[in-house]
Amino acid sequence: MPEMKELTPSQRTLLGPGPSNVHPRVYRALSTPIVGHLDPEFLVLMNEIQEQLRQLLQTRNKLTIAISGTGSAGMEAALTNVVEPVDNIIVGVNGVFGNRISDIVVRCGANPIQIKEQWGKSIDLQKIEDALKQAGKVKAVALVHAETSTGVWQPLAEAGALCEKYGALLIVDAVTSLGGVPVKVDEWKIDICYSGTQKCLSCPPGLAPITFSERALAVARERTTRIRSWYLDLTMIADYWSDSSRAYHHTAPISMNYALREALRLVHEEGLEARWQRHRRNSLELLRGLAALNLHPFVDKEIRLPMLNAITLPEGIEDATVRKTLLTEYGIEIGGGLGDLAGRIWRIGLMGESSTRANVVYLLAALKDIL
Amino acid sequence: MPEMKELTPSQRTLLGPGPSNVHPRVYRALSTPIVGHLDPEFLVLMNEIQEQLRQLLQTRNKLTIAISGTGSAGMEAALTNVVEPVDNIIVGVNGVFGNRISDIVVRCGANPIQIKEQWGKSIDLQKIEDALKQAGKVKAVALVHAETSTGVWQPLAEAGALCEKYGALLIVDAVTSLGGVPVKVDEWKIDICYSGTQKCLSCPPGLAPITFSERALAVARERTTRIRSWYLDLTMIADYWSDSSRAYHHTAPISMNYALREALRLVHEEGLEARWQRHRRNSLELLRGLAALNLHPFVDKEIRLPMLNAITLPEGIEDATVRKTLLTEYGIEIGGGLGDLAGRIWRIGLMGESSTRANVVYLLAALKDIL
Repeated sequence: MPEMKELTPSQRTLLGPGPSNVHPRVYRALSTPIVGHLDPEFLVLMNEIQEQLRQLLQTRNKLTIAISGTGSAGMEAALTNVVEPVDNIIVGVNGVFGNRISDIVVRCGANPIQIKEQWGKSIDLQKIEDALKQAGKVKAVALVHAETSTGVWQPLAEAGALCEKYGALLIVDAVTSLGGVPVKVDEWKIDICYSGTQKCLSCPPGLAPITFSERALAVARERTTRIRSWYLDLTMIADYWSDSSRAYHHTAPISMNYALREALRLVHEEGLEARWQRHRRNSLELLRGLAALNLHPFVDKEIRLPMLNAITLPEGIEDATVRKTLLTEYGIEIGGGLGDLAGRIWRIGLMGESSTRANVVYLLAALKDIL
Repeated sequence: MPEMKELTPSQRTLLGPGPSNVHPRVYRALSTPIVGHLDPEFLVLMNEIQEQLRQLLQTRNKLTIAISGTGSAGMEAALTNVVEPVDNIIVGVNGVFGNRISDIVVRCGANPIQIKEQWGKSIDLQKIEDALKQAGKVKAVALVHAETSTGVWQPLAEAGALCEKYGALLIVDAVTSLGGVPVKVDEWKIDICYSGTQKCLSCPPGLAPITFSERALAVARERTTRIRSWYLDLTMIADYWSDSSRAYHHTAPISMNYALREALRLVHEEGLEARWQRHRRNSLELLRGLAALNLHPFVDKEIRLPMLNAITLPEGIEDATVRKTLLTEYGIEIGGGLGDLAGRIWRIGLMGESSTRANVVYLLAALKDIL
């Protein structure tokens, strides 16, 4: 085996679709010596995380926790707990993550009813309602709040009431949106909402915040078939996170929870409103600067995400070459397009700690040099 | 929301069933500023982890990686990738983790054939063979190498050949054994072996090393029903870890992989043989000292694990009170019994960094004070 030296990665300015840069205080928390996962001190910390997540998600849901996996584990937990074989699940598909939801629905043995939209457009709620009317019984509607593959911001304020009207649960992917734009779980009547730590929360990847309404938890508890995942079975995980039982389920990732606690402290110290404004402000400044370089947004203004800026590549720009130069010469990571959008867009993330004026100025200067 | 102060957990000497104490170098790696999960430097690191894991698991299996979840996610990945509905799976059940395997097998839609043994005893391979003969077609046999709930060390050297004879895969839970006693995947003809980071590898919890033989991977690729988990679907994850494709699957927990890399460096710097000897030596010293306090092992000598010492509680010892005093007065965590063994045994872990002479002496002195 070749000798392996000490870890010395290059410094990166992370302006891709996530992960984002991490605050030094979060790294300090991450490397704080651990206690056991059933230590009374860790149980206090779990309560603190739950309370901070409720505030962030603007919900009173008791079951508001961090899943021991990345954002995609959050997606799977959201679905696998409530979706049973032959259920009808309406899925908005306008990018990679809607497709991933459909894939998981199929693996649950259920039937995804896809509402497809062009990549770069949002899902029309009227089409959801049409599908709800036509499909007969629908168990849930799943929508991606911030489509990381396209930069589209899905309007959600009316979606919950619509689902309620037809007796369906509303499941929302807030992986990229949470902490960067408002996510109002209770006001918008979202039943299940999940996110990831490595986007606008600026914690390293590894945990997935999730919240279940009482109604959603009842659906999970009263289903007739077993939940297909043991690891993500929230009817058991809820007991570990509950003050009354604290029953051992799996060994929680202690260090990652330390880091999430500190990342959430930073979020609340800044304040949600101030944080949303900062994301908006830096995005606008980026787009102004890019326009001067003749680079323009891929997504229409009214559904454009501030933390994930999709930019149309003009003819003549060598996608891979420019991104490689940014990385190797400037230490800047930006994202390329996925699927059909590969080579056609860039995805510039300004998420959490990465959303700073300094980073915007630096990236614009670097791009000007290269182009 | 109540104000949340800086994280300041108490110092703990972790002598329970895991997590174990973590080396300062691992914490330093954990808090190293991250690069992106598709950064060329991270892809190099993934290769390094794979190579180090192969050495540790004593295998040439190409698919040898770290699952993005804790040891239980490793268990679920091991099973859900190969187990299909109506498959027969023989499961050795002599503690909590054999039961957990059976539970997951049921969730896969398959039929667990339980070979039950008294808690504290190992599984008799003759009974496995009898079951293999009787059951007709058996897809896999699952055995727990180190039963963390009882301290039993399952003999495995002959198990692989037996499974091969009947055309069944051998799946081994090495969560607690790996890094503390030999785990010889190729020599023992193990097809699937998984572990956790927080036991004898002394990395914080959050990742699950796993290896699949070519035969096991072929079973996963050629199954007729979809793998029920998207997050743990190794036919896709293998592409992310493969040099040739590097296809994005999910965002890897960067920081945890940094930490695992460093923990594995420490393992190989010490050397496997020296590490196993250290675990054995400290366990023997602990048992000698406990005998002087009239505390004796729960498990017979020949199947006694060195890293998880189950101790029978004599009448008159207040289990919970003693453990609470150890924690609050001495900062020492040891484990109580699970299930039927609650109040009847202690589980004293001497795993990885926690397996030191100093910790043995300290624990013995503390117990002497208390008892």
